[in-house]
Amino acid sequence: SFVMDLPTEAYELAGFGLPLTLGHEGAGVVEAVGEGVTGVEIGAAYAVYGAWGCGRCKVCATGAENYCPHAAELGIKPPGLGHPGAMAEYMIVDDARHLVPLHDLDPVQFVSLTDAGLTPYHAVAHASEKLVPGSVAVVIGIGGLGHVATQILAATTPATIVAVDLNPDKAEFAQSMGADHFFVSDAEAAAKIREIAPTGAEVVFDFVGAQATVELANVAVAMNGEIEIVGIAGGALPVGMTTIPYGVRVRAPYWGSISELIEVYELARAGKITVEVETFSLDDGPEAYRRLHDGTLRGRAVIVP
Amino acid sequence: SFVMDLPTEAYELAGFGLPLTLGHEGAGVVEAVGEGVTGVEIGAAYAVYGAWGCGRCKVCATGAENYCPHAAELGIKPPGLGHPGAMAEYMIVDDARHLVPLHDLDPVQFVSLTDAGLTPYHAVAHASEKLVPGSVAVVIGIGGLGHVATQILAATTPATIVAVDLNPDKAEFAQSMGADHFFVSDAEAAAKIREIAPTGAEVVFDFVGAQATVELANVAVAMNGEIEIVGIAGGALPVGMTTIPYGVRVRAPYWGSISELIEVYELARAGKITVEVETFSLDDGPEAYRRLHDGTLRGRAVIVP
Amino acid sequence: SFVMDLPTEAYELAGFGLPLTLGHEGAGVVEAVGEGVTGVEIGAAYAVYGAWGCGRCKVCATGAENYCPHAAELGIKPPGLGHPGAMAEYMIVDDARHLVPLHDLDPVQFVSLTDAGLTPYHAVAHASEKLVPGSVAVVIGIGGLGHVATQILAATTPATIVAVDLNPDKAEFAQSMGADHFFVSDAEAAAKIREIAPTGAEVVFDFVGAQATVELANVAVAMNGEIEIVGIAGGALPVGMTTIPYGVRVRAPYWGSISELIEVYELARAGKITVEVETFSLDDGPEAYRRLHDGTLRGRAVIVP
Amino acid sequence: SFVMDLPTEAYELAGFGLPLTLGHEGAGVVEAVGEGVTGVEIGAAYAVYGAWGCGRCKVCATGAENYCPHAAELGIKPPGLGHPGAMAEYMIVDDARHLVPLHDLDPVQFVSLTDAGLTPYHAVAHASEKLVPGSVAVVIGIGGLGHVATQILAATTPATIVAVDLNPDKAEFAQSMGADHFFVSDAEAAAKIREIAPTGAEVVFDFVGAQATVELANVAVAMNGEIEIVGIAGGALPVGMTTIPYGVRVRAPYWGSISELIEVYELARAGKITVEVETFSLDDGPEAYRRLHDGTLRGRAVIVP
Repeated sequence: SFVMDLPTEAYELAGFGLPLTLGHEGAGVVEAVGEGVTGVEIGAAYAVYGAWGCGRCKVCATGAENYCPHAAELGIKPPGLGHPGAMAEYMIVDDARHLVPLHDLDPVQFVSLTDAGLTPYHAVAHASEKLVPGSVAVVIGIGGLGHVATQILAATTPATIVAVDLNPDKAEFAQSMGADHFFVSDAEAAAKIREIAPTGAEVVFDFVGAQATVELANVAVAMNGEIEIVGIAGGALPVGMTTIPYGVRVRAPYWGSISELIEVYELARAGKITVEVETFSLDDGPEAYRRLHDGTLRGRAVIVP
Repeated sequence: SFVMDLPTEAYELAGFGLPLTLGHEGAGVVEAVGEGVTGVEIGAAYAVYGAWGCGRCKVCATGAENYCPHAAELGIKPPGLGHPGAMAEYMIVDDARHLVPLHDLDPVQFVSLTDAGLTPYHAVAHASEKLVPGSVAVVIGIGGLGHVATQILAATTPATIVAVDLNPDKAEFAQSMGADHFFVSDAEAAAKIREIAPTGAEVVFDFVGAQATVELANVAVAMNGEIEIVGIAGGALPVGMTTIPYGVRVRAPYWGSISELIEVYELARAGKITVEVETFSLDDGPEAYRRLHDGTLRGRAVIVP
Repeated sequence: SFVMDLPTEAYELAGFGLPLTLGHEGAGVVEAVGEGVTGVEIGAAYAVYGAWGCGRCKVCATGAENYCPHAAELGIKPPGLGHPGAMAEYMIVDDARHLVPLHDLDPVQFVSLTDAGLTPYHAVAHASEKLVPGSVAVVIGIGGLGHVATQILAATTPATIVAVDLNPDKAEFAQSMGADHFFVSDAEAAAKIREIAPTGAEVVFDFVGAQATVELANVAVAMNGEIEIVGIAGGALPVGMTTIPYGVRVRAPYWGSISELIEVYELARAGKITVEVETFSLDDGPEAYRRLHDGTLRGRAVIVP
Repeated sequence: SFVMDLPTEAYELAGFGLPLTLGHEGAGVVEAVGEGVTGVEIGAAYAVYGAWGCGRCKVCATGAENYCPHAAELGIKPPGLGHPGAMAEYMIVDDARHLVPLHDLDPVQFVSLTDAGLTPYHAVAHASEKLVPGSVAVVIGIGGLGHVATQILAATTPATIVAVDLNPDKAEFAQSMGADHFFVSDAEAAAKIREIAPTGAEVVFDFVGAQATVELANVAVAMNGEIEIVGIAGGALPVGMTTIPYGVRVRAPYWGSISELIEVYELARAGKITVEVETFSLDDGPEAYRRLHDGTLRGRAVIVP
């Protein structure tokens, strides 16, 4: 299988055992259910909620399994990130509670919302109390997650949306996703954001997470605002009395809850989130990774077995 | 006046002009009101809300003048921190909205709640949604603000309260304030907190704010928890995907809102906050500062002109 | 003055003294300010927040003067509803905190948002936590307040909006305001709403408030949902264990807070609320009331002195 | 079995089929688990969450199965209220998510918290944002649920607690549960509550739910407050613009969510909720019902098979 083609070191770094079936975003049609399972329709399409938790503790009892404090000690890992994942003809999902019905949505078209939709949705939901009329939301990085974040902000909040990206060619794309303004993330980006938001942006979402972007977030944010660092480029913003504006809360969120995933798919059903997708066969999976690595993918790559 | 005895450099560092009447915590009896002022009773006791803002913007419209984004540009400064303060026979308060009625509370006994009560109250209020039954709150630093924070937590939340301080003699004091546990903040503090809260404390309040304490907070906190850095000892906690537990929000709050100050005084009226006070005459003010500097004050020093 | 032409009985019924200058929605340009007033620019345009409270209590300290528990005992009444109102060449506003800057918005065009915008905004804001993606909001009565409510829902929430009105001619208008569906409020309205929301609508806003409409709201609403009765047509919904779906909260809100009015004007500045207006001179005021009574007004009547 | 002794009409009225094993509050030690069940320890004590829902919809995804909109159509009923209940040697629980670990708590002593604790906890949790320092909470009916509500309010909020009951002998009991004041619910009760809360009580919990008590709630409540009607004595409060104070939300809640039940047991583990219990054998069950009917039970009757 193609997963053997990937460097072993990557898995060891991540703490995963080998062999491993990749694919932490999964969706498909139910073929069979185990004994006693109710509420799942055989033959219907579902998306797989991937942030599996223990399902029994006070955190999981609200559906926020992404923050289950027992998963690590119990050896519970997300599919594709330790547990066998979705790049396969069949996938075993541990519990019916991890299936979200797609209704009339196409699994191929919308599978990537299980992470690329849920992660930004969770970040936006946490910050939404600050995104009242007159507020400004900055989205740094208009890539896989950032372009969905922009759509979510446009669909669920009245905030003015400022998109920022290194690549000036993203301007038109960002605006088609709902951004009101677009700036290249150069030395003048902070000043341009402050022209739109003279007293600072109420919320900054950083989907890059590099040192330069978390520092841009810090300069752009308003007092009592919020910075959500979603990107994993290794940056970290020092938070203390003299380092950031008073009252700003800074956070590195992880994935989202089950009910939030249901809400993401409701946005998709209402036509308020679109995802650009390129499909590959299971055998062409390594090719998808190569093009991802080379930056020549248009949208999300989806393996269709 | 005694304020001349203090080193000029301190004021310049803080950006204040000289001469300056000190005292950012104020309370007293109203002697007179300006033209058109309503709702203030001459002869009645009031506390002074000190975090003055512009009073006109969307932030001030909710009473959160502590985060007014226009105060700096308008040259509005708190009394005692730029504007003439409370260590005087008379004090001019700019607007009736900055007076909170004390009713039957003694101004001398409770003046220090205007900061030492309001600042921890604001931090606790922001975190309170996480302090449900079964949660754990850690208070680092059982000094002027921390001992009030402990009382506020005990009065307003069902959380288990863990107090931490460098000084082992604070154990009994912390418990009399409502702490359920007390640990010395040594190398084993984190492990001891984790015995009480095996999956981490939902909220950590750091009233020291040194590098060592913000790092203790980071080790003690639960996923999706909260760290409120209130102390000003110069520490800063780097927040990014790999540096703190997922979902934790880290924040350096500043003072509090007008309605929060009203609520602080309601706690005091209900007998749920006590403050230990040592009084000094206006002439003995410099002596109060000297003893504060030497660490020989028992409780808060209050100047009674 | 034209206010003399109106029947004296109406005032006595409302408990107002005579003579009274009418006009509880006011906006204009500041001519002069009293001693000590800051933050108000002479010559600039402002809207008048009308739900005046005492400005000193714990409720007013958050800007929710619409619920000030002391206004009645202090004899504080809104302008035009007991206090001299806005239908005059000049109007005296009691405190600068009751002025909201209009910036570049035209006072004539947007004056009616002080009530017709603020009241629905306040109702929507209270219910907004329930208006997540996939939820359904029903607006009963697409008149002066209902058509603004529809716009506010479209601008600030992802809810599916179902508009209901007695008049089938309102269909196109409702949809131009952002409604996804329109139904005539006849015997089949409940069934049609249930087709869109099979388990009930998360929130129902009733801008009529007749007995028939509050009962329609009750049939349309989902368990744990919300009914906001804003209309004043005399209906009342009995709330008890066996009379409405479990967990539904039913409420008759009144006007809104100062920060909510600021947010309303931010929506207007962003072009997300439009108001149809017909202007009259001060002398033609009685004619405006006559046409209001006859139902021949197109939009809101605005008196321009 | 004793359940045969009860009048058949009662079951038919409630829409339950016969025969039926009673007992909607259940707790015990796990004897065995079905295939694939994880996270449940055989031999350990658990309480049974009874408000069973479908477990798959957006409402159940947050653990609020008490408001599952699909339970009725799917024929899902709570144990003891349609489904075989807990008054038996063994009870089958449909899903591990409906078990809450009791840890060191005695199942006999604390079983009744599954309803008598959860129902008031849910009502208090919904209203808690209004129960800030200085607020007043009224508890009408200091019986099975009301005396637990009083303890929950005392443990989780800083509100002043006013207990009201028809029976003057409840005064001492209410105060031992944490009430600050006790009034007999006679013609002067409203006036006495208004002495404690001159502008009205922020929240009124009515555990009787008779017409007289919901009307008392209406007279006692503050503007923008909340009335939670939990009792099932058939009363209903008409809610409309002219019938209750502005902004008050009135609600008839039902049971609670899974995470709320976990929180209830955390309060019990912390010693903050006590329940008076009288035990009966399974054969003596009918006797327990007879004494309940006659009003001669001291506390909750628990059947111990």
